Order: sequence, then C-alpha cells, then structure tokens
Amino acid sequence: MTAYDTNNVFAKILRGELPSHTVYEDAETLAIMDIMPRADGHVLVVPKATCRNVLDAPPEALKAVALTTQKLARAVKAAFAADGVTIQQFNEAAGGQVVFHMHVHVMPRHDGVALRPHTSAMEKNEILAARAEEIRDALKNL
Amino acid sequence: MTAYDTNNVFAKILRGELPSHTVYEDAETLAIMDIMPRADGHVLVVPKATCRNVLDAPPEALKAVALTTQKLARAVKAAFAADGVTIQQFNEAAGGQVVFHMHVHVMPRHDGVALRPHTSAMEKNEILAARAEEIRDALKNL
Repeated sequence: MTAYDTNNVFAKILRGELPSHTVYEDAETLAIMDIMPRADGHVLVVPKATCRNVLDAPPEALKAVALTTQKLARAVKAAFAADGVTIQQFNEAAGGQVVFHMHVHVMPRHDGVALRPHTSAMEKNEILAARAEEIRDALKNL
Repeated sequence: MTAYDTNNVFAKILRGELPSHTVYEDAETLAIMDIMPRADGHVLVVPKATCRNVLDAPPEALKAVALTTQKLARAVKAAFAADGVTIQQFNEAAGGQVVFHMHVHVMPRHDGVALRPHTSAMEKNEILAARAEEIRDALKNL
C-alpha cells in the first residue's frame, strides 16, 4: 500500500485549503459535490479520517461513511426525482481511483440516462451550487 | 420504494434454498462468488437483513456490510495479486440493480484489464469453486 499523500485534493478540502460545495457534514464525514459529475447531482462522501481508500480505512470511518452514504443516496434520489442510485468506490489506480483519499461516489440515476465518463467535463460553479442547495433541502426533509 | 420480494435469488441463497460459493459468513453478512463475474474473483457482499438496497437498509446492516466489504476487498486483492479493487452497489433498476436484495460488488482489478459487461457470461462451477477457495485462504492470512 502506497503511503497517504497529505496534499491530495480531498485532504486540502478537509483542511479548508480548497473550496467545495458541501452538502452534509458530521463528526466523521463530509459530503461534497463532484465537480466533474457523471450524473446531475453526483456527490462524494469522504471520511475525515486519514485513509487512502477502503483497503486502509479504519473501521469507524467505514461505518460512518456507510451511514452518510445512505443519507445522501436518499437525498439525491428525492432532490432530483431519480429512479435509482448508483454507488461506486474505487481503490488504487487499477480500481479506478483518481484522488487518493477514500471517497464514495453517489449518483442519482434516471431510466434510460447513461452515466457520463469518469473525469469528463468540469461543471459550472453556479450549477453545482444550485444542486448542492437542492440536496441540502432534501436532507432536511428525509 | 417497491416492497421486498422474498423470492429473489439472494433471499433463497440466505435461506439455503439455492446453492452458492460462500467465501465468508458472519452473524450479519454473507459473501459469495458472483456467478457472472465482471472480473476474475468478483464477489458479492450480502446483508442477512431483509432489505431491497441501500435506500431501505437498516443502519446495522449498512455498518456490517461495510466491514465485510473491507475484508473481502483485502482478500481478493491478496488472492489474485490485484493492483486495485472496484466496489459498486446498485439501487433500483435505473441504478443498475438486477437482484433486489441489497448487495455490494467487490471486484479485484489488474492494470490495463477492463471489467467485463454487467450480467454477461456465466462462469463454470469448478472455476468459481477454485476461486472461492483462494479467497477463503487469503481471508485466513489477512
């Protein structure tokens, strides 16, 4: 296992050194908008614990991420009137991982609408902000 | 949310009414070989609790599945000398779900080897049995 790189993008977001569209936060997890969404409303659930991915994550982080992932799955489904939700989590480059701090992709899905490619176009900031607002509203009504 | 169908394939496996290649079992979860593997060594982590997917899963099932998923991710990586692991979990048909009892896909990945299509060819029974044995051995050595 490669060592954890403290300069990865999510570590910087967790330290407040980079901005993000935060939709949810608790003591152990943060949920933010993916800036290159594969579906409209694509969010990422990130543990605050320092871990590269599932392979080295502490048990408490795994459990907290699982609970937050459910909250966000329900919220994005409600916020965007989705028909389903696809959850993905990538470990190491061969597994599809691009940023080396553990994260879970939560993507609302609509019948007949394919996912866009992984790491494709950057979404406009104002669109991400508006979708984050819709998800925060949905979380209040869960 | 559609009601839970007690006749889905994983419910039958959990009740012992259908066979499976079991690689791991504890009080709350079962891990079995996917019979239509997208990668060699593709396993499924299934909660014993009655739930359709992440959207209706009880918190204890989510936490138990998260811990078992980590065990299996480590085991398949070790068993098949994988470079990474891809984890996927589908909710409702639009989200990619085919069997409507919650399950998590854990797939060992090798550099440059793409996943095969979802629900493609059925693997031979003896090959699944051999891979299950390799995973059980790897679990002993974690």
